[in-house]
Amino acid sequence: MKALHIDAPGVLSLRDTLAPPLAEGECRVAVRMAGICRTDLELAKGYMNFSGIPGHEFVGIVSEGPERLIGRRVVGEINAACGRCATCRSGMGRHCAERTVLGIYKRPGAFAQSLSLPESNLLVVPDNVSDEEAVFTEPLAAALEIFEQIHVQPGSRMLVIGDGKLGLLIAQVCAHMGARVTLAGRHDKKLSLARRWNIETLKVDSALSSSPASMANDRFPFVVECTGTPGAFASALASTMPRGTLILKSTYAPSNPPQLDWAKIVVDEISIVGSRCGQFAPALRLLSQGKIDVRSLIDHRISFDRCVEGFALAATKGTLKVLVQVS
Amino acid sequence: MKALHIDAPGVLSLRDTLAPPLAEGECRVAVRMAGICRTDLELAKGYMNFSGIPGHEFVGIVSEGPERLIGRRVVGEINAACGRCATCRSGMGRHCAERTVLGIYKRPGAFAQSLSLPESNLLVVPDNVSDEEAVFTEPLAAALEIFEQIHVQPGSRMLVIGDGKLGLLIAQVCAHMGARVTLAGRHDKKLSLARRWNIETLKVDSALSSSPASMANDRFPFVVECTGTPGAFASALASTMPRGTLILKSTYAPSNPPQLDWAKIVVDEISIVGSRCGQFAPALRLLSQGKIDVRSLIDHRISFDRCVEGFALAATKGTLKVLVQVS
Repeated sequence: MKALHIDAPGVLSLRDTLAPPLAEGECRVAVRMAGICRTDLELAKGYMNFSGIPGHEFVGIVSEGPERLIGRRVVGEINAACGRCATCRSGMGRHCAERTVLGIYKRPGAFAQSLSLPESNLLVVPDNVSDEEAVFTEPLAAALEIFEQIHVQPGSRMLVIGDGKLGLLIAQVCAHMGARVTLAGRHDKKLSLARRWNIETLKVDSALSSSPASMANDRFPFVVECTGTPGAFASALASTMPRGTLILKSTYAPSNPPQLDWAKIVVDEISIVGSRCGQFAPALRLLSQGKIDVRSLIDHRISFDRCVEGFALAATKGTLKVLVQVS
Repeated sequence: MKALHIDAPGVLSLRDTLAPPLAEGECRVAVRMAGICRTDLELAKGYMNFSGIPGHEFVGIVSEGPERLIGRRVVGEINAACGRCATCRSGMGRHCAERTVLGIYKRPGAFAQSLSLPESNLLVVPDNVSDEEAVFTEPLAAALEIFEQIHVQPGSRMLVIGDGKLGLLIAQVCAHMGARVTLAGRHDKKLSLARRWNIETLKVDSALSSSPASMANDRFPFVVECTGTPGAFASALASTMPRGTLILKSTYAPSNPPQLDWAKIVVDEISIVGSRCGQFAPALRLLSQGKIDVRSLIDHRISFDRCVEGFALAATKGTLKVLVQVS
C-alpha cells in the first residue's frame, strides 16, 4: 500500500510499504479520506520523536473484519486500549497505560491506503453524514470532551481563545451546549465565520493576545485555550474569574513553556483542566443531526499524491482544515 | 495597644500602636489567642511585600459592636468583602476584588490586643470548643474548602503530600469526609500521629519527594499538595492518575517555581485546582462535634511578650502549631 511517512523532523515522503498486520479482534479499514490536524504538523516537526505513518482523523470502508462490518463506512476511536486493566474496566480506555494511538503512538496512521483498529473502536457512519463531515468526528469528539469533564451550566459565559479550526469547532460546540460564547482571535475571516454561527467575537491584536492582561477587560467563569502559544496562556489565565476553570485543549512546546502564576492559581482558586480525546458516538450524532457546521472549516481538498504538499499547506498561517482524498 | 509588627523582611517587633479604627458595620475584638501559620512566616520573609500587623488565626472577645455580640467569644472569617459587587452577591465574598484580608492584605491582623472585622465575619464559638481549638477554625475551614470545590466520592483514594500542620489537618478532614487517605511525609513523629487517626502513611525520603516519579509506584485520583516545594509538586503530579485532580493548598516562591509538564496535563487530562480559604461555620461545627483532633497539632504555647521568638520557633523545621496567648 501507499502511505505517508515521517522519517525525521521535516522529512516526509509518500511511498509503498506493507499494510499493517491485524491483531486478534482488529479490522482492516480502506481509508477514503483523512484530515490534517495540528498534532500531525507537530509530529512532522518532531513532537514525541515521532517516526512512521501519521493521521488519526479519517473515514474509510471496512475490508477485513466481522461480517457485520465488511463494506461498511466507518470512523474509528484513535486510542486502542488493552480492555483488561483497571483503567479500561472503569470505562477510561482512552487513558489505558498500554494503549496505542492511531497515527500518534505505536500504531500506523490514516495517511495510508489501509489501517488497522480494534473492532470495538469502529463506528458505522450514518448515511446522511458525508465523508467530508465524518472526518471531523475525531476533533468534534475532542471538543465535546470538555463537557464530559466539567459541568458547564447552560447560559454560562465561556471565552474560547484561538480562531483556528479547533477553536472554531469548540466555540460552536460550546454554543450548541447552551453556553454564551465569546471567541477571541486575530483573523477577521475566521471571526466572521463565528459570527455567522451567532457567536460573539473579540478581535485581539498580537500584543493583547500575548500580554498577561484579561481580554476585553472582562473575566469569564470558563476559558478554553486552543492556541498552544505561551502568551495566549497568560492572557487566558488573566481572563479567568476567581473560582473559574481554564481548559487546555492544546499543549506547549517544552522548549518554550508558559510561565505559570502559581500564586494566582491558589489565591483565585483557579482550576486548570487538561482535555484531550472524547467519545465518538455523541460527535457522530451531532453531525448526523446537522447541528455543527464543519464544512465551513474546510479550506483545501487535495489528492493523496499531493499529501506531502498538503502538510505544507496546512502549516501555512491562517489555513483551516486540509482534507486528503486517499482513495 | 501592643501589636506585633513586620517592618521589613525579617524585621519583627512587638510595640505599642493605635488600635485599628472601626468602619461602619465593624466590630472590635479583644484577641485572646492567635496561631502562627505558614503564611505568617512567608509574610515575615517578604511575601506580598507585606508590612504591618500579621495574624489571621484567632479567637477573641467582642468589645465593641452590636449588643448581641458584646462579650461573646468569636472567631472571624478573614476576608472582609464589599458585600455589594457581583462576586459578593453570588456568595463568593472570599473572592471580592475589593476585599481586605485580616493580617494579610490592607487590614491589621490578630497578633495584637485588638482587631477589627465586619460584624458579618464573626461567628460565636460554642462553649464546648476551647480557645486552643477555636484558633484552628481558619485552617480547618481551608481544609474543608477542598470539598466545597470538588466532588470527592466517599471511598475515593486521596494522597496528601506533606506532614506539616496543614497536611495533617487536611489528611484528617479527608478521612472524616470518607476518603481513603494516604499521608506522605518525611517525619516519623508526624506520620505516627496520622496513624493514630487510622490514616495510612508513606514515609518518603528527600530524593523521592523531589523526583518526578510517583510515590510508592502508585497513582491516586485525588492528590493534595501541602508542602509548597517545587520538587514535591513534580512528585504530586506524577502521583496523579489520568483524569485525576491535583489540589494545591500552598503556593510556590516566584523565585523558584516548579516546572510544569504541560503535555502530561493535557494527555492525562489532569485537573489542577488552587484552593485557599473556606467557610467557618462547618469548621466550627466539626470542632464542636469533636470530630477533628487539633490539640495534637499544638507544639508550643507562648505568651504574647515572646511573640517574635514564637515566629522563630514556628519556622524551625518540624515544628507544628505555635499558639500565642495574647491576653
